[in-house]
Amino acid sequence: MYRTHTCGELRLTDKGKTVTLAGWVQTVRSFGSMTFVDLRDRYGITQLVFEGTPEMGREYVIQATGEVLERSSKNPKIPTGDIEIKVTEFNYLNKSVTPPFTIEEKSDGGEDLRAKYRYLDLRRPPLQRALALRHRLAQEVRNYLDGQGFMEIETPYLIKSTPEGARDFVVPSRMNPGQFYALPQSPQTFKQLLMVAGYDRYFQIVRCFRDEDLRADRQPEFTQIDCEMSFVEQEDVLNMFEGMMRTMFHNALGVDIPNPIPRMSWYDAMDRYGSDKPDIRFGMEIHEITGLTRGHGFGVFDGSEYVGAIAVPGASEYTRKQLDELTEWVKRPQVGAKGLVYIKCNTDGTFKSSIDKFYGPEDLGAMAAACEAKAGDLVLVLCGAKRKTQTMLGVLRVEMGGRLGYRDPKVFAPLWIVDFPLLEWSEEDGRFYAMHHPFTAPKPEHEKWFYSDKKEDLERVCANAYDFVLNGTELGGGSIRIHDAAMQSRMFEVLGISKEDADYKFGFIINAFKFGAPPHGGLAFGFDRVCALFGGQETIRDFIAFPKNNQGRDVMIDSPSLIDQVQMDELCLESTVKAG
Amino acid sequence: MYRTHTCGELRLTDKGKTVTLAGWVQTVRSFGSMTFVDLRDRYGITQLVFEGTPEMGREYVIQATGEVLERSSKNPKIPTGDIEIKVTEFNYLNKSVTPPFTIEEKSDGGEDLRAKYRYLDLRRPPLQRALALRHRLAQEVRNYLDGQGFMEIETPYLIKSTPEGARDFVVPSRMNPGQFYALPQSPQTFKQLLMVAGYDRYFQIVRCFRDEDLRADRQPEFTQIDCEMSFVEQEDVLNMFEGMMRTMFHNALGVDIPNPIPRMSWYDAMDRYGSDKPDIRFGMEIHEITGLTRGHGFGVFDGSEYVGAIAVPGASEYTRKQLDELTEWVKRPQVGAKGLVYIKCNTDGTFKSSIDKFYGPEDLGAMAAACEAKAGDLVLVLCGAKRKTQTMLGVLRVEMGGRLGYRDPKVFAPLWIVDFPLLEWSEEDGRFYAMHHPFTAPKPEHEKWFYSDKKEDLERVCANAYDFVLNGTELGGGSIRIHDAAMQSRMFEVLGISKEDADYKFGFIINAFKFGAPPHGGLAFGFDRVCALFGGQETIRDFIAFPKNNQGRDVMIDSPSLIDQVQMDELCLESTVKAG
Repeated sequence: MYRTHTCGELRLTDKGKTVTLAGWVQTVRSFGSMTFVDLRDRYGITQLVFEGTPEMGREYVIQATGEVLERSSKNPKIPTGDIEIKVTEFNYLNKSVTPPFTIEEKSDGGEDLRAKYRYLDLRRPPLQRALALRHRLAQEVRNYLDGQGFMEIETPYLIKSTPEGARDFVVPSRMNPGQFYALPQSPQTFKQLLMVAGYDRYFQIVRCFRDEDLRADRQPEFTQIDCEMSFVEQEDVLNMFEGMMRTMFHNALGVDIPNPIPRMSWYDAMDRYGSDKPDIRFGMEIHEITGLTRGHGFGVFDGSEYVGAIAVPGASEYTRKQLDELTEWVKRPQVGAKGLVYIKCNTDGTFKSSIDKFYGPEDLGAMAAACEAKAGDLVLVLCGAKRKTQTMLGVLRVEMGGRLGYRDPKVFAPLWIVDFPLLEWSEEDGRFYAMHHPFTAPKPEHEKWFYSDKKEDLERVCANAYDFVLNGTELGGGSIRIHDAAMQSRMFEVLGISKEDADYKFGFIINAFKFGAPPHGGLAFGFDRVCALFGGQETIRDFIAFPKNNQGRDVMIDSPSLIDQVQMDELCLESTVKAG
Repeated sequence: MYRTHTCGELRLTDKGKTVTLAGWVQTVRSFGSMTFVDLRDRYGITQLVFEGTPEMGREYVIQATGEVLERSSKNPKIPTGDIEIKVTEFNYLNKSVTPPFTIEEKSDGGEDLRAKYRYLDLRRPPLQRALALRHRLAQEVRNYLDGQGFMEIETPYLIKSTPEGARDFVVPSRMNPGQFYALPQSPQTFKQLLMVAGYDRYFQIVRCFRDEDLRADRQPEFTQIDCEMSFVEQEDVLNMFEGMMRTMFHNALGVDIPNPIPRMSWYDAMDRYGSDKPDIRFGMEIHEITGLTRGHGFGVFDGSEYVGAIAVPGASEYTRKQLDELTEWVKRPQVGAKGLVYIKCNTDGTFKSSIDKFYGPEDLGAMAAACEAKAGDLVLVLCGAKRKTQTMLGVLRVEMGGRLGYRDPKVFAPLWIVDFPLLEWSEEDGRFYAMHHPFTAPKPEHEKWFYSDKKEDLERVCANAYDFVLNGTELGGGSIRIHDAAMQSRMFEVLGISKEDADYKFGFIINAFKFGAPPHGGLAFGFDRVCALFGGQETIRDFIAFPKNNQGRDVMIDSPSLIDQVQMDELCLESTVKAG
């Protein structure tokens, strides 16, 4: 027995007890005849008092026994702040060399150094809280779904490569030379097979893999809460997972989210927020003003399919310099606008605009009114192709919301986006892609268009697909699936996947559908991001115990790495990379 | 809404209600004016009554609405057996082609066919029960460990190849050409790093991978309950996981296992049961009779290091033929004995033995007494090198226990094996191997031998290592780990791993130990086998939703498979296997 109590446990009521603690030395303060040591473990910090000046260094692991005393100067900031331990006996369990950075709430170590010594960074309170939250959320998810009759069923990690969508990680098979397994990008087909197999309600918190060029805050391996249900319609799925989210918020954070969670069609989301994942913590909605701008001789607007605007509250006093900066900001390639038009709604009721030349005060007033701008607001206008311009306005809106402090990470505004288009036309490839994935069913009332050969018919087919959005981030999504073999074949046809190709890649699921597949649907949440957002953070890295960097490397273990020639030979593989 | 109730839900108290069910057609019985259909889902079976003879085939998915009636001839075998639904309206949700085998408690399909159509085999009640049990056990594990303050922390799947022990599956890195990740054989090093990081109590139900030539009932991917604790001694670990097992047995099976679970040293287990995983559901222990056999002129015994025996209850009437068969059985290469000596303890008090020539009745009586044989028993004797002969006797003991019906899968006899030797000498390789793994600590009282250079000293070092054994199967094991960098280096030295090699493969963990690693220990359970044994089965295959066959293939999805040349090129790989 190494300890009688943890370092977070003792209170004034324990006064007089003889206790043994074990943990890490956080700080040492020596006063010659006496040394104060803050001893830390996962549960808290307790002050130890030693006679004299024993050898003591940061991160030493010690075991100390002594009596619990009442402190003369109490520390109200920590739960153990009323007491201290007068140490009568102690052992070094392990000494420590000096850590390369400070292990405190805020560290002095740079990102690379902390990544290399991840096991030391993980000692810091913010990371301990992040992983504790992740643990709590995982248990809440499982308890909720277990209580709803879901079965957690493990699906395989060594599956088959299906190069539709993102790139697979592959695993050479030694026992089947020349052949490869793939790591799953998601258990999509397996969960659908479980529905065919009659399991009715399935879930799994499961690792998924995607060999993509890593954008910021993407990981090659990530975790999904993966769920599927049989004999359900969209309404059943949304209600079930609203319940899950509500429970998670309530039990893990003590936060009660809106009931019901608002829903918005994809088309509305694009029109009003310029995004399929709107941040509805604040308004500042996008308004179309195309009609109001026509026929005033301003060629830029007249030649645009769409003119739209947002009203930024209280920003009418923006200076020339600020407006120039904003114009440069929207012209960056990340936004891609050609320019920015503004209308200042001055507090005195007048308007000042960069297009005064073409539009009189009444015209400007009408535009401002269309945007629900009030005196003191700044109207920002972009124009161009409709969806593209809306998207730019959406980006601008989020930026302005951030500048105005509307994006408080402690405020939670969840939202369902519904009625997605089923298909997305790629001009570049001259073909349709599935907006969600090729197993998503068209809405029953749109099936007539789904079987049409006309592009415009196919473009207006909607799916019973849905995304769960929180604070402008898509946390999850799903759909009602195709459960009919003929409809699935039609889907592959629409996507330009040949029968041969479809049979090779998805033959087993097409075949499975012939044996009585039930109507089914489901969804998946990105668990890493769920944890980050619940934790009030924008990036997922601190919510993953051992993340990889942007080159897909784990710099702590120095992986990936070269392997032995013996291993290569056993796998019947040769590398085409030249050494050096 | 596809259904108002499941197929397992309705009772006589629901009589008169109008309900809607959805499910699969299990059986159809037509009587011209009336058709009876058993409708099945995960929750049960309900009888439907249709007017006339609608088209209805096995495994059709239908939705049916009607009134709940009391049956005239009730079926007491199923919970819904008192009622039936008089169908007034129904839809085909999906028709089915005729399934390739019967989907019932016992199927008429062969193993290969059922593997190919796994999603149909998974509809059968025994597999549904198996996966439901697995789900239940997973939740019980998590609830117990969560309640004990353990944190579930996910460790990475893309790690680094460390070719010590079994062969790794590797994953080529496209972004780091020529380099590979490895899939983890276990999260061993990561969980130890989590202890270094101060997480104190960790667990995970996690997939592990081993590229081994598959013996019967091994899978290339398998699931572990993986746990680790800090500031613990062996006693703390054993108590914690006894509690877990007790909770699992109680909550999932309603079975109360012995409290405390018995413990046995590895040496005792070998001496008494000839196995490090004894089946203690029955006695029939091994007894050494070497001393009693010496000096009677029987060269075979006199020339043997060890003579041991078991007493088989009530088998003294074995015929010549039965004894010959048994002799052949122990001579098979799987057992490897050179021959078998028997002593019949006749019910009249006399003895009859194959070694009557050398040993008189009193000698035989003494041997029988040493084995605690009673009148009517059959004593079976083997001789040779000590451990090898004990192992053979152990195999024979289990075989005889099985023949006598002592191995009831509904009886649960758990056991801890403790005090394992730390090291195992390989004559073949002329080096020591770690009996558990290279991170296992020697017992503190044996450290003096651990630092000795003498082989015989190293051989007697014991570890605080432990295995959890149930009914003759090892379900899990673990140890108190080394937490001292110098001791870990010594371990690598003893195992003949060069400093260079150790640094390359384990540098990050050796380094981590320099920064205040706490004393820690843990264990892992093989979850697939836990589920199988709890389910009263010997094989794990039915407790895994989508298992692979003995060639490591998933025949349902036909994986592994060839991948595109584009993928190979992106990975900078060439296959040395010639096509065709």
